[in-house]
Amino acid sequence: MTRDTDVRHVDATTAIEVACDALVAAGSDPHPARLQAEHLVEAELRGHPSHGLRRLPILVGRIRAGLLDPNAEPTFAWGASAALSVDGNLGFGPVVAYRTIDELLRRVAQTGVAVAALRRTHHLGMLAPYVERLGGRGCIGLALSSTEGLVHPWGGAGPLLGTNPLGASVPARDGGIVLDMSTGAVSAGKILDYAERGLPLPEGWAVDADGHPTTDADAATRGSISPFGGGKGYALGLTLGAIVGALTGTAYGPKVRGTLDASHIVTKGDVFVAIDVEAFGQPADSPELAAYLDLIRASGADGGAVDVPGDRARRARRSAEESGFDVTEDVWSTIVGLASEAGIGVKAGHRP
Amino acid sequence: MTRDTDVRHVDATTAIEVACDALVAAGSDPHPARLQAEHLVEAELRGHPSHGLRRLPILVGRIRAGLLDPNAEPTFAWGASAALSVDGNLGFGPVVAYRTIDELLRRVAQTGVAVAALRRTHHLGMLAPYVERLGGRGCIGLALSSTEGLVHPWGGAGPLLGTNPLGASVPARDGGIVLDMSTGAVSAGKILDYAERGLPLPEGWAVDADGHPTTDADAATRGSISPFGGGKGYALGLTLGAIVGALTGTAYGPKVRGTLDASHIVTKGDVFVAIDVEAFGQPADSPELAAYLDLIRASGADGGAVDVPGDRARRARRSAEESGFDVTEDVWSTIVGLASEAGIGVKAGHRP
Repeated sequence: MTRDTDVRHVDATTAIEVACDALVAAGSDPHPARLQAEHLVEAELRGHPSHGLRRLPILVGRIRAGLLDPNAEPTFAWGASAALSVDGNLGFGPVVAYRTIDELLRRVAQTGVAVAALRRTHHLGMLAPYVERLGGRGCIGLALSSTEGLVHPWGGAGPLLGTNPLGASVPARDGGIVLDMSTGAVSAGKILDYAERGLPLPEGWAVDADGHPTTDADAATRGSISPFGGGKGYALGLTLGAIVGALTGTAYGPKVRGTLDASHIVTKGDVFVAIDVEAFGQPADSPELAAYLDLIRASGADGGAVDVPGDRARRARRSAEESGFDVTEDVWSTIVGLASEAGIGVKAGHRP
Repeated sequence: MTRDTDVRHVDATTAIEVACDALVAAGSDPHPARLQAEHLVEAELRGHPSHGLRRLPILVGRIRAGLLDPNAEPTFAWGASAALSVDGNLGFGPVVAYRTIDELLRRVAQTGVAVAALRRTHHLGMLAPYVERLGGRGCIGLALSSTEGLVHPWGGAGPLLGTNPLGASVPARDGGIVLDMSTGAVSAGKILDYAERGLPLPEGWAVDADGHPTTDADAATRGSISPFGGGKGYALGLTLGAIVGALTGTAYGPKVRGTLDASHIVTKGDVFVAIDVEAFGQPADSPELAAYLDLIRASGADGGAVDVPGDRARRARRSAEESGFDVTEDVWSTIVGLASEAGIGVKAGHRP
């Protein structure tokens, strides 16, 4: 898919404007379009293009198919003082997610802890920015999403688990810990990339349709991705997906739809947990934790560097904010094309 | 360490009685002794002897050293309506943990969600029984503990991370999900066992003192255990340990003491999260989740079986309850010896 030769170098401001225009052209009001565009570009800046601009055409397709309401406002229902159920009303993921986080932050000032369960909201994209916002407000943040079935059970066959990611923040000086990891060994996009290039896969990435480990990328595309870390990663991913399903009433594993296609109603769910550190009598900016993270960073074998979760993305972001980032030409030209369609797409006011 | 020849077959009732006697002999009142003994035997029944009776002599040593107060009552302080800080007052882990869980269960009836941060409490042992109790009451449960530094950072050298385990329950028919996993690739006990037998380690288990991967068990005992799942497992373990430290004010990594020795005050911490599923308008016994777990169980490649987290321990428990379990002769004779010392040890009333 990605070739070194056909990339375009863009800056964040331009990318956000073009992405925003593309969403407005499809029918979004400017404000939600801008939030969604910023979140996609944020993934590019942090070095995670899989969650970046290439997701935009799916969103546009979903708006046009009447599956995504770009101007929806979420509905909040507190089932108990620390338990928030959120109906996204089929809106953009980042719009619903940031509104939810603001709601949680107001609540934890009273309760110390609050949990939100989100359904009928679109793909949240990278989880890091959400938990980072919680971390920046002195909270431990957790973010869980269920995703389409792509990963096999350990010892089993078939894509029965999502890549069910986990986001987590622990506040400390200089940003603290910002974890954002999938529970798959590798992304589906990377396996497709290897298949297109005709390259063998590293061992441990995938199994074929019968559940047998394979390094044949074509066989892997008909099979499933392996969980990271063997049986433990499988157990973790299954548990995270089950937590999301249990709290949101959304679908499990193979019944999850709507983040990779433009033809099914969205059936995935998301969960946020916010825990105010000061409600436990502890400082939100613990010098002990900061010192411990520095000790970890300084532990590199053979003089190498060790990263704490969040470090790599922070470095990538600083660099890309200054000097821009690469987008593949096909993704960029598609978005520019969509942005130039203003007046043609389904306009604001459309409600699926 | 373990030889097939020198094991003793015991039944749960006898094991609990002897373990209880050993703790009473050391100065514990009968009630906390029984809770602690039951929790150790519970690990044996579930097939996890590393968290079973072999931990008892350490507890006795800690009581005698004045580091563990077997008759301590925990102190509860709600810093906000869903945020509970627990001072274990140096009591037994299971005693403090079950009291804390009861407190959380009462609270979630009002708040839907509650979190407890525990400090100055002793080793909780297996986390599964705690989250299982939460699951049995319709809650998603999470349990986190920090542990002594044994695991190296990914790319780094030195035992700077604990094996920081994660327990989690998601309620469903027949017990649902009960996860209990360490974030180390393997236990320290297993590496010691290989070293004593002079066997090479499987790849991926450990690094030497310089952070270089090794299959030399002796070198590994002077080095550190690898995280499970490479960089992702490292990131997860570090995050879990940081969450515990941030909420409890307890120590990080190499400064954690008191679960493997009888000479330092305990400096580890624990966190419980309880989330009442019904507070989110969802059933605590979702047929969709139960059906999904059965789909996972039926996915075995080549006709094999796949377990959902909790299945293996449930099978082991059923079998061991019926027919007993094996304990190594050295562990058993030590405990029997301790149990026969009634009247010799430090008696109840001793307060460190």
